[in-house]
Amino acid sequence: METIDVAVLGATGTVGQKFITLLEGHPYFRVRELVASDQSAGKPYAEACKWKQDRPIPESVATTIVKSTQEPLESLLLFSGLDSSVAGEAETAYAEQGHLVVSNSKNHRMDPTVPLVVPEINASHLALIEQQPFEGAIVTNPNCSTIFLVMALAPLHRAFGLDAVQVTTMQAISGAGYPGVSGMDIMGNVIPYISGEEEKVEEESLKILGDLDGSMVRHAELGVSATCTRVPVLDGHTETVSFKLSSPAGIDDVRAALDDFRGPPQHRGLPSAPERPILMLDAPDRPQPARDIWLEDGMATMVGRLRECPVLDYRMVVLGHNTVRGAAGASILNAETLVSEGYLANGRLHRGGRAAQHEEPVSSCCS
Amino acid sequence: METIDVAVLGATGTVGQKFITLLEGHPYFRVRELVASDQSAGKPYAEACKWKQDRPIPESVATTIVKSTQEPLESLLLFSGLDSSVAGEAETAYAEQGHLVVSNSKNHRMDPTVPLVVPEINASHLALIEQQPFEGAIVTNPNCSTIFLVMALAPLHRAFGLDAVQVTTMQAISGAGYPGVSGMDIMGNVIPYISGEEEKVEEESLKILGDLDGSMVRHAELGVSATCTRVPVLDGHTETVSFKLSSPAGIDDVRAALDDFRGPPQHRGLPSAPERPILMLDAPDRPQPARDIWLEDGMATMVGRLRECPVLDYRMVVLGHNTVRGAAGASILNAETLVSEGYLANGRLHRGGRAAQHEEPVSSCCS
Amino acid sequence: METIDVAVLGATGTVGQKFITLLEGHPYFRVRELVASDQSAGKPYAEACKWKQDRPIPESVATTIVKSTQEPLESLLLFSGLDSSVAGEAETAYAEQGHLVVSNSKNHRMDPTVPLVVPEINASHLALIEQQPFEGAIVTNPNCSTIFLVMALAPLHRAFGLDAVQVTTMQAISGAGYPGVSGMDIMGNVIPYISGEEEKVEEESLKILGDLDGSMVRHAELGVSATCTRVPVLDGHTETVSFKLSSPAGIDDVRAALDDFRGPPQHRGLPSAPERPILMLDAPDRPQPARDIWLEDGMATMVGRLRECPVLDYRMVVLGHNTVRGAAGASILNAETLVSEGYLANGRLHRGGRAAQHEEPVSSCCS
Amino acid sequence: METIDVAVLGATGTVGQKFITLLEGHPYFRVRELVASDQSAGKPYAEACKWKQDRPIPESVATTIVKSTQEPLESLLLFSGLDSSVAGEAETAYAEQGHLVVSNSKNHRMDPTVPLVVPEINASHLALIEQQPFEGAIVTNPNCSTIFLVMALAPLHRAFGLDAVQVTTMQAISGAGYPGVSGMDIMGNVIPYISGEEEKVEEESLKILGDLDGSMVRHAELGVSATCTRVPVLDGHTETVSFKLSSPAGIDDVRAALDDFRGPPQHRGLPSAPERPILMLDAPDRPQPARDIWLEDGMATMVGRLRECPVLDYRMVVLGHNTVRGAAGASILNAETLVSEGYLANGRLHRGGRAAQHEEPVSSCCS
Repeated sequence: METIDVAVLGATGTVGQKFITLLEGHPYFRVRELVASDQSAGKPYAEACKWKQDRPIPESVATTIVKSTQEPLESLLLFSGLDSSVAGEAETAYAEQGHLVVSNSKNHRMDPTVPLVVPEINASHLALIEQQPFEGAIVTNPNCSTIFLVMALAPLHRAFGLDAVQVTTMQAISGAGYPGVSGMDIMGNVIPYISGEEEKVEEESLKILGDLDGSMVRHAELGVSATCTRVPVLDGHTETVSFKLSSPAGIDDVRAALDDFRGPPQHRGLPSAPERPILMLDAPDRPQPARDIWLEDGMATMVGRLRECPVLDYRMVVLGHNTVRGAAGASILNAETLVSEGYLANGRLHRGGRAAQHEEPVSSCCS
Repeated sequence: METIDVAVLGATGTVGQKFITLLEGHPYFRVRELVASDQSAGKPYAEACKWKQDRPIPESVATTIVKSTQEPLESLLLFSGLDSSVAGEAETAYAEQGHLVVSNSKNHRMDPTVPLVVPEINASHLALIEQQPFEGAIVTNPNCSTIFLVMALAPLHRAFGLDAVQVTTMQAISGAGYPGVSGMDIMGNVIPYISGEEEKVEEESLKILGDLDGSMVRHAELGVSATCTRVPVLDGHTETVSFKLSSPAGIDDVRAALDDFRGPPQHRGLPSAPERPILMLDAPDRPQPARDIWLEDGMATMVGRLRECPVLDYRMVVLGHNTVRGAAGASILNAETLVSEGYLANGRLHRGGRAAQHEEPVSSCCS
Repeated sequence: METIDVAVLGATGTVGQKFITLLEGHPYFRVRELVASDQSAGKPYAEACKWKQDRPIPESVATTIVKSTQEPLESLLLFSGLDSSVAGEAETAYAEQGHLVVSNSKNHRMDPTVPLVVPEINASHLALIEQQPFEGAIVTNPNCSTIFLVMALAPLHRAFGLDAVQVTTMQAISGAGYPGVSGMDIMGNVIPYISGEEEKVEEESLKILGDLDGSMVRHAELGVSATCTRVPVLDGHTETVSFKLSSPAGIDDVRAALDDFRGPPQHRGLPSAPERPILMLDAPDRPQPARDIWLEDGMATMVGRLRECPVLDYRMVVLGHNTVRGAAGASILNAETLVSEGYLANGRLHRGGRAAQHEEPVSSCCS
Repeated sequence: METIDVAVLGATGTVGQKFITLLEGHPYFRVRELVASDQSAGKPYAEACKWKQDRPIPESVATTIVKSTQEPLESLLLFSGLDSSVAGEAETAYAEQGHLVVSNSKNHRMDPTVPLVVPEINASHLALIEQQPFEGAIVTNPNCSTIFLVMALAPLHRAFGLDAVQVTTMQAISGAGYPGVSGMDIMGNVIPYISGEEEKVEEESLKILGDLDGSMVRHAELGVSATCTRVPVLDGHTETVSFKLSSPAGIDDVRAALDDFRGPPQHRGLPSAPERPILMLDAPDRPQPARDIWLEDGMATMVGRLRECPVLDYRMVVLGHNTVRGAAGASILNAETLVSEGYLANGRLHRGGRAAQHEEPVSSCCS
């Protein structure tokens, strides 16, 4: 398979840096262009960026000259970690120019024609992009708290149906970017509020668990109640979850549904796919963010403490790596899925997926 | 009013130290005897104890010789912060000897004849002690997570009835005593399990909200589901709570019920009583343990983020100081209530309260 | 004594908030005016300010309308917590208008005619203000790391002379203001560098320990080497210090010099003066920021672990509360000293102190 | 090269676990025997051990039955992470039985015939084992704070001579083992004392920098002053260091000496050797424990902020991974050095190294 050149939008930010780190040595994708704000544009990346990752800046990227969002891009595939203050308009503009924007930003997630995808769950929603009024397309992944919740709910929703879900999140500070949360606010403290977060968890979950019905997604119908808090943890979102099933199921069946869950990324062996999307941990005091987030290279969702709930049916504790599977890694797995489904082949975007590869007119972009 | 001499049981432990700190300069009680394990017995308190409080050891206590649990005590009133491994038998023995044991330990809380009291809520349960087969008596207060939950629920239970409650706690490490939680386990981490804690929250709440029916407490009937976690916070338990009312109520009525809640400690102006047992905080990101636990000298329950819940009826965030109102302070307020209700007067225990003062035979204890 | 109205400059900042907190109920001073940036000006203080103190905003101050630095002030005495980006020009302008500016900002500390004062050590330097070319005057206190170092050194310098000092600071994050240090940078980390801090410690110490020689301060001559680091501590700067004396002294004499140290604030019983400016702690593992900073209401310097040094003569560990004695509290004690020395009397500034009260022409300012 | 079977002593402790983790897949050594306290003996390792490492227990080790210190061992080479309360006698007994004990424990470090080795610096000291009165031998590595200090000093000592060194350490909590430091003591705090630590740093450094003179080590003569503190960091010891050279040198020469430093492990390409033992970091605010300890797989010593010192000649900040290069990794590199120097060959210990392989009588042990 030919290597696909990609651009990273918002390359100097926290998510952008994670894209660059995770894409180093990627078997499909090669980072060729970097886009950031005007004040970074024109500088070599290593100079423009306040690098905050554990590993040093990849050499191939360190000297790349950063482009502004006004400059045309050669790469067909763009990974977007743009700040939400600019992502809305910028991503639309790129899609209009023919690019395939695979975005971690929140702006377009709830647009009716934009797929909000967790490929283990709803890869079929990618077909929505045929409805988009662009030469190119926009594909999104959910918020970093939504993804672990919905991953743990999807097998239950599929097997038994779901009536109601209660979740309390205890979110890591890396989810707020850099500089993000002040040390004065978070050291030895819990902040029981994250602006806009609860709405995202409650709304995005319903779209992801929804059914593709022709040209639209019919959102799932269940009550989701989220309380989102920030705790003094560097990486890893922990979530306590209670849920009510639509049809009765024993705890062993619930456990088996979670344990056996696999999706297209696993079936196709995509490079960033965790071998098992959900890891059940047996120890009574797990999962823990400081100990378990790097299982499956940060791409798995860990579930522990599955037990009966005196109010709903069952409850459990869910954990995931918020900046890997919860952000950049989610976008990368989405892009791998797009490739595996034929949306991206031979240097072109095929808006109808594999089936459409021979029928579609050639995209005029990026020439 | 005459000063009442008291003993502190488990005086060298975390709760014992808090008893001593909070009782310094108390208008009713004077710490006269200290009881600890055999290895501490016979030593001056300052030498036996690894003091961990902010303020220095009160001078009057520093030189007191620690007694063992085998030695007879002169004080009628005993505050117990005994470790649960010994509290069960020891407290029973003291009660048999005629002492009034006001205990923070878990061992006797669920005994049918032992009052489990939060005096704003169920001071009437103190009458249970008449059922106890002792010369003396045992009175308990709830677990440090239970008390803030039940304080925030009691006014709602009273006004509207309660069908179901979901709570996730984020508990401070001081709740585990000293040395308690290893720094290796908790720094930058969340531990989603505390042994035995969820059972306590779920069971104790029903007893406290229950009705005294003749010689027994009929436990409240509602579903309580608790998930208890430990977070890197020094003092202050934060709880996210969702609840379903038995009869419909608007959010303003719910808020008013919480805001207006007062109980006997407030009506009688007891020395340790918070002026308002529940403080409603309006800022969207409060209450926070690092900022709000010392309101009302650590004796209040803070409630914030009251809003509708998509699954149950409403949800809120609850906070309290776990080693003050959640432990030693709770016992002290119970003892003040006992005094104010006439259970303790003229150096004697009146097991029927004020009404019984003139009818009861004189207790033979402590002579 | 008549209450003196004062203004707080930079009132919405971290130091400004501390001024307001510490001045509440002050026996000399009453906060009457508040000055902040143009975007805060015109608003009630409670609205303009993101209040971060433990205690709520004093009621008397909450509704005060914030003034801009361009507006004239009625108060003669101004406490300055202005950001260093504006303090230089603004403080000069206020002094030219006849105000007495008692400042915690760094800008004027090293000006030859500006006293840099720790009143236990060099209250005599206040006489420098006669050299200032203003109607009013500027008086400063040192950096938050300098003050604890120099407090522990002053008695040794006086008794034995000092040749050399090595200090490593471990500074709390509150020293960087709000939002200050990112949680992403400091959680579980040490940052071994604070911009400009080492120079301040090295230079300011020499001025404070210097001698007033007529119209100037002759700086002390000793080598001071400082390495300044930031650690995950909320409040309290810890410093490890080694020093070489000019004339030999036994460890008991060194200890006695520290223990016996008193200065004018103690002799005059000034309201904010610690009873003992230096507290020697005997436990081998003290002082500790989480346990000891509130001794003497945050105004003392704690010294522990005094012992011989294999390289210089002795070494010790020094601690103090960086936002109390290290900032706002230092300025307030300076102001109290100014009052006690007659620089401020009968609503006027007497630039020559008490001796000059009857000779000086009346200041024309603030009429 | 043949794989060498080894035993890990103190296998269930913090250092023992690190040995097992670092030895997984090692090209020379294979963990075959595990020794722990009597209460662990007889159990499979996975059951006896409270595993605290990031990675799961290696499968090959999980089912190994733990032996007690009384049972004879088959492995010639023993890695010791024994607790210092038992290491002294146990290690001597193993050496008497003919084993080569490569130990991280402190007990024998300062014995005149026991090499205290950092192989980049003083591999020649291994010859000391010929002086030991055992069939076998004991080889030790220094304390976790000593090793990074002495690594940064050795090139300077060699090139310019050293007269004096001042160091303040800020040590991670993992250095205290598990459970080790209570969360109640260290969260948001600095503990300015670690029992016995300063003596170790001051004494061990002189032995390591000393010269082998016939059958003994002549300790280096320079003043070393250490102040050791504990900070809320999980892994990584940071040290601020000032030093005085014996002969003058410019800062560029000092930097070059550090940067160019290499030793036998580098020349021989030993498996655990860092490519460069000292990494100079240029950023003004580095090295930082949360960011830099994993450079060179945790085996390097990071140096930053090299600059002149107003009291001694120069100062710098030094950092290293305390449980890797500071403990188990140090022992493993010592063992690799022993192999590379011929002390261990063909299943036998050659107490005179390579030169002696053909002359020595065959050791009777372990046959």
